[in-house]
Amino acid sequence: MKRRLLLVSNSTLHGEGYLQHCQQHIRDFFGEKVTRILFIPYALHDRDAYAKTARQKFQSLGYELDSIHEAPNPVDAVRKAQGIFIGGGNTFRLLKTLYDHNLVSEIKKRVLEDGVPYMGSSAGTNVSTVSICTTNDMPIVCPPTLTAIGLVPFNINPHYLDTDPNSRHMGETREQRIMQYHEEPDTPSVLGLREGSVLLVEGNKATLLGTTNACLFIRGKPATQHEPGADFSFLLTDTN
Amino acid sequence: MKRRLLLVSNSTLHGEGYLQHCQQHIRDFFGEKVTRILFIPYALHDRDAYAKTARQKFQSLGYELDSIHEAPNPVDAVRKAQGIFIGGGNTFRLLKTLYDHNLVSEIKKRVLEDGVPYMGSSAGTNVSTVSICTTNDMPIVCPPTLTAIGLVPFNINPHYLDTDPNSRHMGETREQRIMQYHEEPDTPSVLGLREGSVLLVEGNKATLLGTTNACLFIRGKPATQHEPGADFSFLLTDTN
Ligand SMILES: [Ca+2]
Ligand SMILES: [Ca+2]
Repeated sequence: MKRRLLLVSNSTLHGEGYLQHCQQHIRDFFGEKVTRILFIPYALHDRDAYAKTARQKFQSLGYELDSIHEAPNPVDAVRKAQGIFIGGGNTFRLLKTLYDHNLVSEIKKRVLEDGVPYMGSSAGTNVSTVSICTTNDMPIVCPPTLTAIGLVPFNINPHYLDTDPNSRHMGETREQRIMQYHEEPDTPSVLGLREGSVLLVEGNKATLLGTTNACLFIRGKPATQHEPGADFSFLLTDTN
Repeated sequence: MKRRLLLVSNSTLHGEGYLQHCQQHIRDFFGEKVTRILFIPYALHDRDAYAKTARQKFQSLGYELDSIHEAPNPVDAVRKAQGIFIGGGNTFRLLKTLYDHNLVSEIKKRVLEDGVPYMGSSAGTNVSTVSICTTNDMPIVCPPTLTAIGLVPFNINPHYLDTDPNSRHMGETREQRIMQYHEEPDTPSVLGLREGSVLLVEGNKATLLGTTNACLFIRGKPATQHEPGADFSFLLTDTN
């Protein structure tokens, strides 16, 4: 398994610049062999502005960036990519557009069979997993299915948020929402990545990077907290 | 148009009992001709417990409550209902189950053609509108479509939440999420019902009840705030 993934909870930490908090991880991940990154901006409406922001950041890290929305043939762009980065925004819009352009199976093939490094942030992290069932986003459009690229066999909840004990708001807490997911039969584990967390997957090894703890929900068990450096490789082989 | 709807943002206000904050509206709405309410508990996993909670509350208001999950034939139960109440929980689970049991068109017919009074709370309010595209819930299951019962031609966002200026969390605010919806073409207006708000629809007249202001999003226009007593009848005829 050649799989290499860098799955980021959030593109921007409060008070910092775009992708600033994880820039050293990005450099380490794409390394020096990759010179150009294929960017997929479908999660946001203004793709030009989004590509500009991403291009500036990646150029500052030493990488050229091609945005797929400027490519004459998106499938072809994925076939030729040295590295892929899918940015955040609305997860439903992102997944629908990936299906509209027949990119889901192509990206999966490139990453799992050819070892093309894949970086995702927020919605781009959601779509890399088994399904988008644990996105925080509004269903503003309807993708053909919630099944996603499936680069890992579990779910991630990005921007994971602890329950605020002082809140008077009565909507479900994040934990309650994930618990509701696990009331459904045969639902996989959910890794809650707080802002500042990054999951690095290399082959069959998964490691928590970043500055915040992650919260793991396994169906039928109490949630557990894990510090940066934690080994999550068991999530890659678990079928549940 | 015989339509009569009582659309509640949230079933429980902080520090109060189940449906306590809107109990006088419920009495006024179902009145004295209705003696039995058909309850639809599909949004929560534990239907027995949910029906028990709802039954206690409605009995205290003078109504018997039949839960549809105890009926031998759900479609038949809707056909015979004097009044309908759909409770909150997970909106995706609720809508999927309504479709699984062929209830969407049956409820629509009963409410719009026969004038059966319909009360919804939270997810039960979402499914009464044109679609569930503005739910806050996680897509824990996949309904066949996001199109909902369509008792009104616009969207509601229940539990509407103002942006917290002190938050360091970088996930989208509620306003940003609704704005993303309106980036999509031909999307209808969204009425943000804060906790404590209730929308009463009688024929072609819609009135804001309750104790909190509502926030209205019309595509391409700035959001506007509206106090209890506001007339929202124009939302019933607007096609957009
Ligand atoms: Ca998002
Ligand atoms: Ca809910």
